[in-house]
Amino acid sequence: METNTFSKFSAEFFGTLVLVLMGCGSAVIAGADGTTGVGLLGISFAFGLSVVAMAYAIGHISGCHINPAISIGMVIAGRMKASEAVIYVIAQVLGAIAGAAILYLIASGKADYSLETGGLGQNGYDSGSPGHYNLLSGFIAEAVFTFIFLFVIFGSTSTKNINGGFAGLSIGLSLVLIHIVGIKVTGVSVNPARSIGPALLVGGQALSQVWLFILAPVIGSILSALAWRFLLERK
Amino acid sequence: METNTFSKFSAEFFGTLVLVLMGCGSAVIAGADGTTGVGLLGISFAFGLSVVAMAYAIGHISGCHINPAISIGMVIAGRMKASEAVIYVIAQVLGAIAGAAILYLIASGKADYSLETGGLGQNGYDSGSPGHYNLLSGFIAEAVFTFIFLFVIFGSTSTKNINGGFAGLSIGLSLVLIHIVGIKVTGVSVNPARSIGPALLVGGQALSQVWLFILAPVIGSILSALAWRFLLERK
Amino acid sequence: METNTFSKFSAEFFGTLVLVLMGCGSAVIAGADGTTGVGLLGISFAFGLSVVAMAYAIGHISGCHINPAISIGMVIAGRMKASEAVIYVIAQVLGAIAGAAILYLIASGKADYSLETGGLGQNGYDSGSPGHYNLLSGFIAEAVFTFIFLFVIFGSTSTKNINGGFAGLSIGLSLVLIHIVGIKVTGVSVNPARSIGPALLVGGQALSQVWLFILAPVIGSILSALAWRFLLERK
Amino acid sequence: METNTFSKFSAEFFGTLVLVLMGCGSAVIAGADGTTGVGLLGISFAFGLSVVAMAYAIGHISGCHINPAISIGMVIAGRMKASEAVIYVIAQVLGAIAGAAILYLIASGKADYSLETGGLGQNGYDSGSPGHYNLLSGFIAEAVFTFIFLFVIFGSTSTKNINGGFAGLSIGLSLVLIHIVGIKVTGVSVNPARSIGPALLVGGQALSQVWLFILAPVIGSILSALAWRFLLERK
Repeated sequence: METNTFSKFSAEFFGTLVLVLMGCGSAVIAGADGTTGVGLLGISFAFGLSVVAMAYAIGHISGCHINPAISIGMVIAGRMKASEAVIYVIAQVLGAIAGAAILYLIASGKADYSLETGGLGQNGYDSGSPGHYNLLSGFIAEAVFTFIFLFVIFGSTSTKNINGGFAGLSIGLSLVLIHIVGIKVTGVSVNPARSIGPALLVGGQALSQVWLFILAPVIGSILSALAWRFLLERK
Repeated sequence: METNTFSKFSAEFFGTLVLVLMGCGSAVIAGADGTTGVGLLGISFAFGLSVVAMAYAIGHISGCHINPAISIGMVIAGRMKASEAVIYVIAQVLGAIAGAAILYLIASGKADYSLETGGLGQNGYDSGSPGHYNLLSGFIAEAVFTFIFLFVIFGSTSTKNINGGFAGLSIGLSLVLIHIVGIKVTGVSVNPARSIGPALLVGGQALSQVWLFILAPVIGSILSALAWRFLLERK
Repeated sequence: METNTFSKFSAEFFGTLVLVLMGCGSAVIAGADGTTGVGLLGISFAFGLSVVAMAYAIGHISGCHINPAISIGMVIAGRMKASEAVIYVIAQVLGAIAGAAILYLIASGKADYSLETGGLGQNGYDSGSPGHYNLLSGFIAEAVFTFIFLFVIFGSTSTKNINGGFAGLSIGLSLVLIHIVGIKVTGVSVNPARSIGPALLVGGQALSQVWLFILAPVIGSILSALAWRFLLERK
Repeated sequence: METNTFSKFSAEFFGTLVLVLMGCGSAVIAGADGTTGVGLLGISFAFGLSVVAMAYAIGHISGCHINPAISIGMVIAGRMKASEAVIYVIAQVLGAIAGAAILYLIASGKADYSLETGGLGQNGYDSGSPGHYNLLSGFIAEAVFTFIFLFVIFGSTSTKNINGGFAGLSIGLSLVLIHIVGIKVTGVSVNPARSIGPALLVGGQALSQVWLFILAPVIGSILSALAWRFLLERK
């Protein structure tokens, strides 16, 4: 690996590690109850602010994808080579696993925590959904939310947009938004790596349902790239 | 339709779709209870962050009005042609209907949801008001809040304002502010399209009261345009 | 009044109106309970986001003081003429009264609201303090918080600061911060106009205690101006 | 002390004073209960917004470290002389003590407050941890969170980052994030001065456990500096 690629790999690895550790960590450690914990709003801010923080920390190195759906969307949009995307995705998945592992290490320092009862912030549908939403609902939600997330990314990082400095802020805050709306449906993924990391460590239902959180975000991402190419910024 | 107009139409359509799906979605799916849901503060952030996200995503294409009251105000302020505003308003209303429809699709994936009990985040007064505020109160609130919203828009996008890049942030955060204060009064509209979309699908009282959420925001918008023209930035 | 002064007067009038209507309105209409209302955090955001919104809306016209303590501090710091500050303060107090009046108009559209039970978000100490903090505590808090608020204003708008565009954001967010910490002590003023407006309409204890919310913020503001002149940016 | 150094000393002193007074003040005065107080989310915003406010107020004077772990990290990264870091750390610790003292002064204006029952927002592990997390968990959390905090600082202030103006915002918001996730573990320090201030005044367990909040953040900071030097921005 050449120096430049090595830096990008490191950036994507650490960035995804932070997203999973902090986003999922807010749910596992701080809690979804708004009276005694940080509540659903706090968890939403944790995921989104992870992206804001990483965007301004590593954006100048790797572009801060930290999400395979983004890297794939960038390939479809003609902004990235497929060969580079492969390296990004590997770094992202490894970072997500590392983030979930560190979260487990910290969480297990509390006497009554166990992987079975506390989990690692995994995503799910049906009985795995926080609000018991069904598979179809979860699939539509993940595809639509990823479409919207990529929609914000394509627009705010467009070369025609003179306010590109705000991209990290608007992209991160759009992830806050998506979590506010969607946590009760699937726990919100819109990011295959973010789902794979916890699922591998938790296993069981989280692992058997993880396919949806790979497939739906990728479909949403591709549709969003096509919408930009043929509807929003046609040439 | 020429290419440029088509892009603007698409931008306004998708932008308003996102505002209604995510703003109203936060109320319908995530819930107004601050302990088990995202609370009124979470719903306020959902509406405002939808605008922040869209402002930086499509601002360079259409100016990101996604609200007929804004397009009408821009005409009054002499910043937009009436003929173009008509196309914007059509795109906004269609986008709002599409957003409400997708929200219904996702929300109905929960066993105990129905349109009658869960609604689609529609606006209302009297028995339709979350805090049972009366018609007069609702009318004043919607007109005054739209006046303030447009006040922020005119000022932060003024050609005399050297910090124009922050407009998307200040406009979106002002919508967070307006929702924090006004949700209990009417659920907050300040945007005819945002009210029409859910009202058409929910029907009944939501539809019979929707006139207020068209009339009051338009009056507030016109007064705000006049205040800027004759009091704030006189020539 | 010449044109330029008239615009500044209008800007300060409307800006303070918005701050009082929306800040105090969040407490009166939306409620301090975090489960059924927007909670203390929501009220904190309402006051701070009012400043963010106004800073980017009227900052280029009047500098967006909307607070007599700021105008007085600017005179002490040598950044404003005393004669102009007098006009600013008059506009601010009139705007605050107008804001409180509109709030009363909207709030009274709810059947069980009365000025006696619901108030208008007035400030107080002892039995007038939300957390029953005493006069000394209230005085120190208001002076120290205003010192900090002006500290942020002087620094973020300094000509030596190359990130001046962020001033509106950092100043508004510092007001969110001050409210998070101080609401239980006095309801937080740090702004004589914001206290005078509601006190004049509510009368009674609010009016008899309003002296503290004029005196303490002004002392804090003067000390902050001196700290900048002799400790932070010495010549 | 020469003029320039005196200004930097003053800036770091006041900045750390504000961080401790407002951050810890939010926990002591406003409360961790999300229904009657500002909740864990409000406390998280208080710490983070203190940094946002100070970054834009004193960033152009001292760089706004207000945290010994940052000054030490900057020395390791080759961005600061060790002799200057010593002066910074002295100012930071003195500022933290002053901040804790002012907080005690305000808090004791409430009849039922005492240092024993109310504390000053001190950090701790085991029985000193809000969620009763053990020493190992607390140590890992503080080291990892400081690593992440410095990671954001190094990246967002890098000379290769063209969006340097956003650094204050992204660094402050990353501290919001870290508090959302970590408050239940240790109360979150990632800043030896922030822990030393309250511990000196509270004494007892807070003082006997303060070593962890000096050691772990410093280790995290050094590792982060090395990660940037050898993995992210290699030469």
